[in-house]
Amino acid sequence: MEINIPDSGLPRVVIVGSGFGGIQLAKSLKGKAFEVVLLDRNNYHTFLPLLYQVATAGLEPDAIAEPVREIFTRQPHFHFRMAEVLQIDPQHHKLDTSIGTLHYDYLVLACGSQANYYGSDELTRHALPMKTVRNALSLRSRLLENSERALELTNEQQQLEQMNIIIAGGGPTGVELAGAIAELRDIVLAKDYPELPLKHMKIHLIEGNNRLLKSMGEDSSRKAHQFLNRMGVTVHLKVMVQSYDGRVVTLSNGDTHAAKTLFWTAGVEGVLIPGLSPASVGKGNRYRVNAVNQVEGYENVFAIGDNALQVLPDYPQGLPGLAPPAIQQGQWLAKNLVSINRQEPLQPFRYVNKGVMAVIGRNRAVVELPFWHTQGFLAWILWMGVHLLLLVGFRNKASTVLNWAVNYFSYSRASRLITRFQNAPVEAVTSVSGASVPL
Amino acid sequence: MEINIPDSGLPRVVIVGSGFGGIQLAKSLKGKAFEVVLLDRNNYHTFLPLLYQVATAGLEPDAIAEPVREIFTRQPHFHFRMAEVLQIDPQHHKLDTSIGTLHYDYLVLACGSQANYYGSDELTRHALPMKTVRNALSLRSRLLENSERALELTNEQQQLEQMNIIIAGGGPTGVELAGAIAELRDIVLAKDYPELPLKHMKIHLIEGNNRLLKSMGEDSSRKAHQFLNRMGVTVHLKVMVQSYDGRVVTLSNGDTHAAKTLFWTAGVEGVLIPGLSPASVGKGNRYRVNAVNQVEGYENVFAIGDNALQVLPDYPQGLPGLAPPAIQQGQWLAKNLVSINRQEPLQPFRYVNKGVMAVIGRNRAVVELPFWHTQGFLAWILWMGVHLLLLVGFRNKASTVLNWAVNYFSYSRASRLITRFQNAPVEAVTSVSGASVPL
Repeated sequence: MEINIPDSGLPRVVIVGSGFGGIQLAKSLKGKAFEVVLLDRNNYHTFLPLLYQVATAGLEPDAIAEPVREIFTRQPHFHFRMAEVLQIDPQHHKLDTSIGTLHYDYLVLACGSQANYYGSDELTRHALPMKTVRNALSLRSRLLENSERALELTNEQQQLEQMNIIIAGGGPTGVELAGAIAELRDIVLAKDYPELPLKHMKIHLIEGNNRLLKSMGEDSSRKAHQFLNRMGVTVHLKVMVQSYDGRVVTLSNGDTHAAKTLFWTAGVEGVLIPGLSPASVGKGNRYRVNAVNQVEGYENVFAIGDNALQVLPDYPQGLPGLAPPAIQQGQWLAKNLVSINRQEPLQPFRYVNKGVMAVIGRNRAVVELPFWHTQGFLAWILWMGVHLLLLVGFRNKASTVLNWAVNYFSYSRASRLITRFQNAPVEAVTSVSGASVPL
Repeated sequence: MEINIPDSGLPRVVIVGSGFGGIQLAKSLKGKAFEVVLLDRNNYHTFLPLLYQVATAGLEPDAIAEPVREIFTRQPHFHFRMAEVLQIDPQHHKLDTSIGTLHYDYLVLACGSQANYYGSDELTRHALPMKTVRNALSLRSRLLENSERALELTNEQQQLEQMNIIIAGGGPTGVELAGAIAELRDIVLAKDYPELPLKHMKIHLIEGNNRLLKSMGEDSSRKAHQFLNRMGVTVHLKVMVQSYDGRVVTLSNGDTHAAKTLFWTAGVEGVLIPGLSPASVGKGNRYRVNAVNQVEGYENVFAIGDNALQVLPDYPQGLPGLAPPAIQQGQWLAKNLVSINRQEPLQPFRYVNKGVMAVIGRNRAVVELPFWHTQGFLAWILWMGVHLLLLVGFRNKASTVLNWAVNYFSYSRASRLITRFQNAPVEAVTSVSGASVPL
């Protein structure tokens, strides 16, 4: 059955995914001669750059998620539907979704990326990814529950095995996660669990390259590495996760480390929707797009953000999977869609790198602006300011400021609820509460 | 295996449940010659009086839940364990829990109450209770998702069936829930879903007695009823839910109403733990306790709060299941435990009713203080102040003030994330996100 959207007679742009790219595109199409339908399996936009803060109890999930309908209140000819897109039918310009079929004149794929375990069943089974609010809450619960469980173990070796953390991947997510977990350990867990040998709890950060934050400059990498060492994170370079059985990780150099928890930030791949020709899919499951984000081989199908493999002169490997490229592609594509409609020539996308940054902890960040690099406290202030400005929605900003301020001055963590029960028996979840599934 | 608690040589008080009673008792025992072990299946205390705000997207869950360890930081001889108590062995003064056995010198049962469906399988299957954070998030998701689903239905009858709400029980919870849902409908949903016939969405409040808020005075009942009528809630008195098949509710007077959602606040029963003699259990599965909260037939087992059936001269039916009695019993029991320890005479519990209140919506509440009743705006201000003062923990207070302020002035709702997927297929939950269970 066709999803019922009041017909406006305007050409319909269907956007799949309410991430940075999709949201920006829909915003930029406001007032243009298009009917816009945005689809996402969630009814909210997730501010992914701060997801690690949810995972480490610094922010409650609601602070980094904004209801899509709130963002587009009163935007004419805009329609949101909560749906999973199952199949694309490019011949008939139709989508098959969990709530019905949908015709499109222009289709924009902006479904982002997901964890890539490179086919390892072991990792799929035991590793915890960090791509969604649900993921982040699982990480948070695991981090806190590990300590609760460790209290029940009598020998220190077992306790450490229960508490130790492996983080695979030394990119921004891995680095930020490692720093935040180190702070959680030293500030919160040390206070909450004086009985536990937290001084000996290990946080291993595993990176295959010869330096962390490879997407940034050498100086930033060096500084981030330094910061993490000082915070008691063990950084392993030029090694990869060979295997992980849920208890012991084996690295490519043969080293083994005992840890019941492994967080995976070592690889992502685009989220593909069945229906387009395999020829249109490139490295890392990203759709090959031309300079105007058209998917190779399709007139009216576009891809942006992590979904797109867009090779530009300065980016022979394709643009990085970050928010800024997605946002700029969204803005740019809006202009080009208007031109297509008017049969005007299209403008090839130009990416403006406004800078990249990563935060390692309180007072510690690394920032690279086009003509200036800085690390440490000033960088941290910059990082904080930028992220507050970017956070969608007043209320989110406000409560985020509040939480950060409180954490900063109280050395506490706001959101320490164990809500996903990673290790506990299911009974503990369902009994009494009557909930059919854990939170 | 015995749960390992560092031995202090002091007599051990084991408290089951980190609700208002259990938390207060543990606090009041600070500095006394006891070793205190608090057990709960969650690592946080839930501020139940504001749970309905989470259910109606007014507050994020973290704002009404406080980590237990945060409350008791640095309290000597206090130990918290996250555990489910499975069995009491009163002969040997031992508990059997999900993480091991535990010896007690004094046992205090404070596990509160749960929804009571009076044995109806239908209701157990279809009704949504409102006793835990998880429950509240299910309600929130259902309320929002109903509208998303209704968009996909073409005939208005089906749409209303999908959106209508039945609330069973006209006590404080039912009344507050009804009012908050009416506001959600008129303020948020009407804005987010202009396509839907929200003017015709029905909210039915079903109460068996001849008036709402039976625990309060006639004037409060009348006013609450008036407020709800004005807000477009249909109140049904002197009827009960006869049957509910998940689509249509049949009332005891034969009336039927179509609604895919039924919230249950019509009855609770104490949470019992196996092991004590059935003779010690009274009406509503509450433990019969004497004037010092000793469970009938047991020297060193006590019950407080919703767990206790304490009959006092002014309360022949037993004290109401509210926070104040639980808190006062906790304070009082602490004193008596000290006396027992010193072989001094015990003081029978005296309950001081400081007043009761219920909030129906913006500017609308009913308050009964010992010598003064008031309704409307002033009552609402009072209600807000009292609840802010009661909220555990600075940060919660602050972010609660913030959310309320924002809601009040923006007519918006802070926490509108659909995170429990009430109607959607499980795939929608697990796919892509990689989460093994819904949030």
